[in-house]
Amino acid sequence: MRDTYHDELDSISTALVEMAHQVGSAMSRATTALLDADLALAEMVISNDDAVDARYRDIEARAFDLLARQQPVAGDLRILVTSLRMVADLERMGDNAAHVAKIARRRYPASAVPAPLRSTVLQMGNAAAEIVAKTGSVIASRNLDMAAELEKDDDVMDELHRQLFHSILDDAWAAGVEAAIDVTLVGRYYERFADHAVSVARRVVYLVTGERVIVT
Amino acid sequence: MRDTYHDELDSISTALVEMAHQVGSAMSRATTALLDADLALAEMVISNDDAVDARYRDIEARAFDLLARQQPVAGDLRILVTSLRMVADLERMGDNAAHVAKIARRRYPASAVPAPLRSTVLQMGNAAAEIVAKTGSVIASRNLDMAAELEKDDDVMDELHRQLFHSILDDAWAAGVEAAIDVTLVGRYYERFADHAVSVARRVVYLVTGERVIVT
Repeated sequence: MRDTYHDELDSISTALVEMAHQVGSAMSRATTALLDADLALAEMVISNDDAVDARYRDIEARAFDLLARQQPVAGDLRILVTSLRMVADLERMGDNAAHVAKIARRRYPASAVPAPLRSTVLQMGNAAAEIVAKTGSVIASRNLDMAAELEKDDDVMDELHRQLFHSILDDAWAAGVEAAIDVTLVGRYYERFADHAVSVARRVVYLVTGERVIVT
Repeated sequence: MRDTYHDELDSISTALVEMAHQVGSAMSRATTALLDADLALAEMVISNDDAVDARYRDIEARAFDLLARQQPVAGDLRILVTSLRMVADLERMGDNAAHVAKIARRRYPASAVPAPLRSTVLQMGNAAAEIVAKTGSVIASRNLDMAAELEKDDDVMDELHRQLFHSILDDAWAAGVEAAIDVTLVGRYYERFADHAVSVARRVVYLVTGERVIVT
């Protein structure tokens, strides 16, 4: 019975890695939809968020089930409880991808991103994709060096976020208030997405080392 | 020993109620700091967020400790795991209050909220305070009618959020891009704060009824 149990424990970890891939793909598509003003792609991201939510419920149910049936102690208990929290972060990341797609949809057929900011938004989208890919690898490998890299990657995202604000607040801003709002929200969604990804990686660090990093 | 155990379980629930009160107070002060451009009050909210985070860690440690020592089953297990998730929502609510206070600080000595929007922002602040107060009562009483009311209260918040956007996007908007960004972010912080509060109440509903409401 212990073998089945550990298989189930592993399968939850695998499902978390898949979910990281899923929300990463959602955010990459949302970025493309935003920059290309691609309505069909935006709609796809928005409707696919149901699949992210379904996976969330599935992982949650399996973790609860194992907790209730197996009465795990120490390390396994910590893995399961931590998994329940990681899956909540991943679900929020899916929401942020859907939020970006909704802004793309709202401005269609125009693009929500004024030409001078396309490069910064593209960089934020790429940073988000790289961060979540690394998060998936951290869940799978429990590689602490990679988890440490994520903190630096998040600094890059924060710097891009600052650049975005500077552009909007620059006297040369000519795209108007509506675009300023869109870009402000989009910036926030990318930044939150990255924060949740880093939070997942920090939970892995906690699992491995027992050292707690609080998310601020 | 079971009595001590149930005392500890109750004390976690009490701590969650206190934390709801704490983040509610933080958001009320943040609203006042924002509308009055009160720098000292804004600083107080920002530095008090450390106390919210400390309570978060304390509740988390106690719940983990009970999980590990008592091996709870069924109902008690669900209470503890749900508590771990509620405390994460409450911690995020504290972050949102601190975010509002940071906007107040950034614009000091000016107010970040243009005169025509003061009323709407005040209403959002009041709605947030009422929602979190009700959430605290729901945790304490497990009153499902009150939990259902929260869904409607959240609709009120969403409507205020929409009003805010309409005002910014109105042709009559004369406060400029910087104020538009501030108000956009502030609106988002109130809306997230309320969403997390509703999420906490939904977790209580799940505890009582076993029925799962997914947060979208």
